[in-house]
Amino acid sequence: MKELEDRIRQDGTVKPGNVLKVDAFLNHQCDVELFDHMGAEWARLFAGKHIDKILTIEASGIGIACCAARHFGNVPVVFAKKTQSINLDGEQYVTRIYSFTKQREFPVIVAKRFLNAGEHILLIDDFLANGKAMNGLIELCGKAGVVIEGIGIAVEKGFQSGGRELRDAGYEVESLAIVSSMDAGTGTIEFA
Amino acid sequence: MKELEDRIRQDGTVKPGNVLKVDAFLNHQCDVELFDHMGAEWARLFAGKHIDKILTIEASGIGIACCAARHFGNVPVVFAKKTQSINLDGEQYVTRIYSFTKQREFPVIVAKRFLNAGEHILLIDDFLANGKAMNGLIELCGKAGVVIEGIGIAVEKGFQSGGRELRDAGYEVESLAIVSSMDAGTGTIEFA
Repeated sequence: MKELEDRIRQDGTVKPGNVLKVDAFLNHQCDVELFDHMGAEWARLFAGKHIDKILTIEASGIGIACCAARHFGNVPVVFAKKTQSINLDGEQYVTRIYSFTKQREFPVIVAKRFLNAGEHILLIDDFLANGKAMNGLIELCGKAGVVIEGIGIAVEKGFQSGGRELRDAGYEVESLAIVSSMDAGTGTIEFA
Repeated sequence: MKELEDRIRQDGTVKPGNVLKVDAFLNHQCDVELFDHMGAEWARLFAGKHIDKILTIEASGIGIACCAARHFGNVPVVFAKKTQSINLDGEQYVTRIYSFTKQREFPVIVAKRFLNAGEHILLIDDFLANGKAMNGLIELCGKAGVVIEGIGIAVEKGFQSGGRELRDAGYEVESLAIVSSMDAGTGTIEFA
């Protein structure tokens, strides 16, 4: 998606250690008009698929998923939680993932009543790199018996293995920008 | 806002310990059509105020704020973070708050470059009870020298002191549903 690639080139910054910062428009400050265009693009890419619900993970996925849902007929958005809470009673699907950006392990929790066997799910997240978060969501989907119709990603780090592994496993992964290489020294970002 | 009150009566549940669960439509599963209507209602209530940016706090505020932003001319949404991350470099405004639902203390962090002195800010959050989270955001706003134009809340627990204290301090607080009393035994919820 050219608009997202242009924005990453313009406002994204590359930091040492394979860190791509897009916090000016994607995951700390949010450009909701861009999010709306991203939602429209996923709706085009997943046209013909029936989607009952969007599943994402807190926190950065939520805004993107909520703006995208409008383009899928205002389907409900469920976001997986990363902390236990007194609001989370009842039965839960739970797994654990390691977060690269937070550099620690987190639980990934969804209340069982919000994922019903047979529902058709679109998974959405802001980043796909090694795929740890997405595989956590897929594991919960497997436990719930829902049908994964596709995976919508804003920014995929194409030089890490997460996207390839998911496509090899048969999932339709639609990443709106795939970074093929980036260089913290020169600040250059190349797209696939 | 009648639509939100009706929805709370229909799908909300009261739990012992003053817990109002609205996770079926507000803060775990999200009804984005309702969020859109909430945004329209805040735009009506804050009409005439110039808003440059919406500030909220992860995680439950994000979806609501992103859907509301559309009704304020697609202004940027900034969400305060509750965990340090390698994506959070640069200078930050930081304070600490105690979360009732998580039952522990959290940092509240906003990168300095996303709150600029003189900007007109609308604060949005899903819940207002004792006001701890909102006061954390207000503290960061004070440090940044931004102008708080108003506070938009989805559900206020009117029998707790947060809303009264904020209004006494001179803020325009627009809560779309104010719960005046609730009873875990009978499940009844009354609105102001």
